[in-house]
Amino acid sequence: MEKKNKIDQLLNQLGAWLQGTGQDSDIVVSSRVRFARNLKGLPFYHWADESKKKEVYEIVKEALFDIPELKNGIWVDISELPDLDKYFLLERHLVSRELVEKGPYKACVIGDQEIISIMINEEDHIRLQVLESGLSLLSALDIARRIDAQLARRLNYAFSYEWGYLTACPTNTGTGLRASVMLHLPLLVFTKQIANVVNTIAKLSFTTRGFYGEGTEASGNFFQISNQVTLGRSEEEIVENLLKVIDQVISYERQAREKVYTQDRFTLDDQIYRSYGMLKYARIMNSKEAIELLSNLRLGKELGIIDTDVRNINELLLLIQPAHLQKIEGKKLTMKERDIKRAELIRKRLGQEV
Amino acid sequence: MEKKNKIDQLLNQLGAWLQGTGQDSDIVVSSRVRFARNLKGLPFYHWADESKKKEVYEIVKEALFDIPELKNGIWVDISELPDLDKYFLLERHLVSRELVEKGPYKACVIGDQEIISIMINEEDHIRLQVLESGLSLLSALDIARRIDAQLARRLNYAFSYEWGYLTACPTNTGTGLRASVMLHLPLLVFTKQIANVVNTIAKLSFTTRGFYGEGTEASGNFFQISNQVTLGRSEEEIVENLLKVIDQVISYERQAREKVYTQDRFTLDDQIYRSYGMLKYARIMNSKEAIELLSNLRLGKELGIIDTDVRNINELLLLIQPAHLQKIEGKKLTMKERDIKRAELIRKRLGQEV
Repeated sequence: MEKKNKIDQLLNQLGAWLQGTGQDSDIVVSSRVRFARNLKGLPFYHWADESKKKEVYEIVKEALFDIPELKNGIWVDISELPDLDKYFLLERHLVSRELVEKGPYKACVIGDQEIISIMINEEDHIRLQVLESGLSLLSALDIARRIDAQLARRLNYAFSYEWGYLTACPTNTGTGLRASVMLHLPLLVFTKQIANVVNTIAKLSFTTRGFYGEGTEASGNFFQISNQVTLGRSEEEIVENLLKVIDQVISYERQAREKVYTQDRFTLDDQIYRSYGMLKYARIMNSKEAIELLSNLRLGKELGIIDTDVRNINELLLLIQPAHLQKIEGKKLTMKERDIKRAELIRKRLGQEV
Repeated sequence: MEKKNKIDQLLNQLGAWLQGTGQDSDIVVSSRVRFARNLKGLPFYHWADESKKKEVYEIVKEALFDIPELKNGIWVDISELPDLDKYFLLERHLVSRELVEKGPYKACVIGDQEIISIMINEEDHIRLQVLESGLSLLSALDIARRIDAQLARRLNYAFSYEWGYLTACPTNTGTGLRASVMLHLPLLVFTKQIANVVNTIAKLSFTTRGFYGEGTEASGNFFQISNQVTLGRSEEEIVENLLKVIDQVISYERQAREKVYTQDRFTLDDQIYRSYGMLKYARIMNSKEAIELLSNLRLGKELGIIDTDVRNINELLLLIQPAHLQKIEGKKLTMKERDIKRAELIRKRLGQEV
């Protein structure tokens, strides 16, 4: 594993989960599986004093450096990072806001192609995440389990036969599993069915979030649906129940696409092409507009209207964020400067015309 | 002169006044001179019975067919035209709304390249118009006088040594001259100086109208400034006074362009390029939006930001109108169909990308 801070190399190649391939990739952006784990006999991070935090950090670090699957990974000591780099990793979906906030002995490991990432001393001692393109929860679960098994051989997990894995927050206790799927649902938004869908999902004990994770509003018609229940069910049950819900949502979105496109093709065409035009021509663009327009462009691709590269659109959704823009430019930028650089980056990436 | 209704041939080539050349053509679209004339001993159109209207029609027609400058012109009997063709000529700035409204024995002659057009039995018996590209009032006045002199040799004008040319409406009496200049003033609008300018102009007895003539609001930052006073001054004085005002307005607009572009280049760039993007990509577009966007594109050309053909933009400002779109398609169109065809026409004319 690379011990040096090699965050800058992440600028050159983005995560495999953005490649826009896999099952149902016309609607499903990505699938994510996350395990929460803690070490036996050591207090949860928020209750631990500095020496205990350090102890956890060192034990987990040693174990991680020993795992063959992570030997090409990047080790990052969060506490040593400049703020810009912290937000860069956050924007990247590699770490949580919790991890980059104040506190000593925090770290993460970023695996090859950003498929695996592991946080140390987040809310839990260990947060293991696997992120893949398309609808691939079972494959992601499989990878997460393999890494988890490797870790379990080297670490003594806090585990109770009655409760399962013990976690800092009771909502994670049991399997410690959070499975989530990021969906692109522009037509459920367009036809105003989305509120109903989200409500129904909530009643079935699933949670809906935005593209940019916990605590963010849905933007650009991206919705992340995940399980709430972690206790009293097996990992397979949790994933299979989520998949049933996802399948339903996918079929609603597909029906809406077909219906609207048959009934009022021009309105949808116009919205998509105008978005494309704005993206290719604007000189100043804020994040919110960029996300909305990229979402429309993605829909254009999904409907076969515009021949464009989905991976490129997905990557842009990350690259247009403030820390990414500033890392690309190699310096701090004001909001206005970012809006200008954002527009410039998008034009370049979409094949500049003027 | 062509006696047949050859309106359809106008579809293929638009008027010379749209060519975007001539003095100060970065701001001045076109210059127009109009004479109002009536025949001695015959009542004004609105007071005349049918036989007198017919008499005027025949006398003027005979004279017009005798004038060498008009031998390549098109003679159009307005009363025989389908509504679509009437509005086509109106949109073209060749006839007035007054002429195409109900009433018998109305006609017009459209000269070569649409520089000269003459209306018969409008409010006055004769309305002679000369329309040229750029700031060219003196040249337009010269042409108008030449034709007027030819007509005067063949017709007995209603003229009083005290009042000058007698006209149906007293606001035209005297010289019968209306001189007007169409200006493109986007930066006076952008910097909100335009209201002041229009007020000052009004105090100096000049009138400001929109692109689409009398009774229209200014749209797309186009303003038509003309003299109100026709009496008690020579034609030269009227034109020279108007030119003084126009020169002032042009210098205000130039100053505003320079100032804004120096201080906040990106905002203006963004507005111009976004407009270009919309024009090249939209699939549905109403007239109002099209005019605004074309105005921004014209500004882009005027500021040297976008390399595009001004004649093309000017022509589009005419072609996107309802009757023109329907003539091009050769059939009646609903508003929605027009909005679709308008977007299509603009894309084609600006070099379609997708």
